[in-house]
Amino acid sequence: MHLNEIIYLDNAATTRKKPKVVYDAFDYYIKEIGASPGRGSHLLSVLASRYLYQARKTVSRYFGCTSTNNVVFTKNATEAANLFLRGYLKKGDHVLLSPMEHNAIFRPIHSLKKEGRIDYDIIPLEVFRDLKTDVLDMYVKESTKLCIITLASNITGEILLSSEINKYLKSRDIKVLLDTAQGAGRVKLSMVNDNIDYLIFTAHKDLYGMPGIGGLCSLEKLDIEPLLQGGTGVHSEEFINPDIVPEKYEAGTINMPSIWSLKTGIEYIEENMEEIIEKERKLYTICLEGLKKLKNVIIYGGEKIDKYLSIISFNIDGVDCQEVSRQLSENNICVRSGHHCNILGHINIGTKDIGTVRVSLDYHNSIQELEKFIDIIKKISKG
Amino acid sequence: MHLNEIIYLDNAATTRKKPKVVYDAFDYYIKEIGASPGRGSHLLSVLASRYLYQARKTVSRYFGCTSTNNVVFTKNATEAANLFLRGYLKKGDHVLLSPMEHNAIFRPIHSLKKEGRIDYDIIPLEVFRDLKTDVLDMYVKESTKLCIITLASNITGEILLSSEINKYLKSRDIKVLLDTAQGAGRVKLSMVNDNIDYLIFTAHKDLYGMPGIGGLCSLEKLDIEPLLQGGTGVHSEEFINPDIVPEKYEAGTINMPSIWSLKTGIEYIEENMEEIIEKERKLYTICLEGLKKLKNVIIYGGEKIDKYLSIISFNIDGVDCQEVSRQLSENNICVRSGHHCNILGHINIGTKDIGTVRVSLDYHNSIQELEKFIDIIKKISKG
Repeated sequence: MHLNEIIYLDNAATTRKKPKVVYDAFDYYIKEIGASPGRGSHLLSVLASRYLYQARKTVSRYFGCTSTNNVVFTKNATEAANLFLRGYLKKGDHVLLSPMEHNAIFRPIHSLKKEGRIDYDIIPLEVFRDLKTDVLDMYVKESTKLCIITLASNITGEILLSSEINKYLKSRDIKVLLDTAQGAGRVKLSMVNDNIDYLIFTAHKDLYGMPGIGGLCSLEKLDIEPLLQGGTGVHSEEFINPDIVPEKYEAGTINMPSIWSLKTGIEYIEENMEEIIEKERKLYTICLEGLKKLKNVIIYGGEKIDKYLSIISFNIDGVDCQEVSRQLSENNICVRSGHHCNILGHINIGTKDIGTVRVSLDYHNSIQELEKFIDIIKKISKG
Repeated sequence: MHLNEIIYLDNAATTRKKPKVVYDAFDYYIKEIGASPGRGSHLLSVLASRYLYQARKTVSRYFGCTSTNNVVFTKNATEAANLFLRGYLKKGDHVLLSPMEHNAIFRPIHSLKKEGRIDYDIIPLEVFRDLKTDVLDMYVKESTKLCIITLASNITGEILLSSEINKYLKSRDIKVLLDTAQGAGRVKLSMVNDNIDYLIFTAHKDLYGMPGIGGLCSLEKLDIEPLLQGGTGVHSEEFINPDIVPEKYEAGTINMPSIWSLKTGIEYIEENMEEIIEKERKLYTICLEGLKKLKNVIIYGGEKIDKYLSIISFNIDGVDCQEVSRQLSENNICVRSGHHCNILGHINIGTKDIGTVRVSLDYHNSIQELEKFIDIIKKISKG
């Protein structure tokens, strides 16, 4: 079996195929530039610093942020979440969470609670689904400082972002942190217009960048303690990180080739978004309809298809989810089964003990691939 | 001017040229595998997990560590330092530092002191240079828990590691943390034989990996609090990172293509170390002798050439170091001037206020490149 014969339907974990321009951008950077930004004033380092600035500008523009200086690069969304939550939340703060938060958000929040620093509550899904501000209101306390919302669930693909809920939160003086790890490349949003105060992103999923880069955007200048102390390339003479943003939050050598690949990935999406979304909608509909026809298949979500990314979680009645993915894998089809690093979401959709099979599609998949996938599920489900 | 006409002598910041096998390894991983390890049980994820295991094995073998499970990957040496120091040091601990520690070590340590958690002292250079355990002894306190030593200075290239000092520290029940960011690919060492309890590394310098990966090795199973909470791919159902090493310390999607490039870089070094060192010794000697002949050039170090990496820090009397690198840059030569993210070292060599010009060589440099470099320094120094 050749690796290129594999049918990869695990794009919510990492998009396996990137546009050619993304590979080329990485290659160009590592082979032609090869130097790190901010380390020295020689011509390559200056060029690297310009490229870094351009990448920040692209990220800032894409997310409708306010300034290139408000874009901090981290190694992944998880580091961005830890940097922000550890730095921003103070003793006694209360935090609201959507019920679909990934462990990258939930675990740092739960740790802060365990340490006795904060408390949190989880808001029901209907708040986001049906814009029930009256229900949301029941969870707000005097000490509520932050509400964390996932752009879209990595389990079911459901899109939770709503401008209305954010507007309401703003009226209550509660800041919004949006985790866009899933859906950043598929849902057009604007931090300014949608009242998103802080935003976390990762490169390696639907933004088509390489693994090893993520980040944090903020509407206003970030003013928290850094997570990492170390060399910042500026003001080396100071005994702790200098108070200069965003460098203060980026100690150590930055992953510049991957940043350059991310910039290129975002530009690719900006240019091709309509086409990408149209194709994925088509693939998603075929997959969803195909699964719906099978008996014994339980689908979690997918009711209003425009409220979902191209991710479907399901189970086959009486068959363990790991067994389903094992049989698919035997047929060279890659999907993910289990809890998908998200315990809150599984508690919410009632699959805490059993997990789900998750199929996550990408623009680079084909109808033929989905037909083969449905065919095997049909056999397993005896549908 | 073409980018490939540049003479790059800033390899201590980042080696610009990597062996072809390293580029190829990255390319193979990102295009053929493309999936993340530990995310799902499908065939690509299983393959990715095997590759990750192989990479840990290579790192563990190379550094003479005890187990693949004792190799933790981080985004760079700075994250590894922060993870270890924040996790390992407890209130009241006293720490010893070599006087050449990089800001990646010094700033986290100084921050911990500022927070009132620890105290530290800086040991004189003669301890490492002349193996003066009696001098070292004067700095040891009842509460001294850790001694941090840089393998080699990123300013002067001086190699500080000595088995004898580590042996003495062991006899005093003080653990050793070695920062190998500079020199990991040029100084053969063994954690077990040289009594190095903890070791920090980075890929993008003389180990010839890509930027975006570093790590921490420990002789014994690491048992500290993780720096990052988040998705670990294992035990997703737990509310905080599960107590499984090394996954506990690697929350979030790991930079697997770069890990694969690092593995390949290390293997390249293992196969070619003698040849690499021989060539670099030759280049270093030519450069050092060339600079020594020039009047007005002050060199910091280089007395016993086998005690130095191929790094030379110098100044030209009466000329600002930034002006020197500017003039070199005008001639397409890249060196780094200033403080090189290392304030302690500059205090120690007496260049705190003026910084130095640093030229750092690599196996991929040529004699012709150095001749051109010396020629320009000659003009600037009027030597």
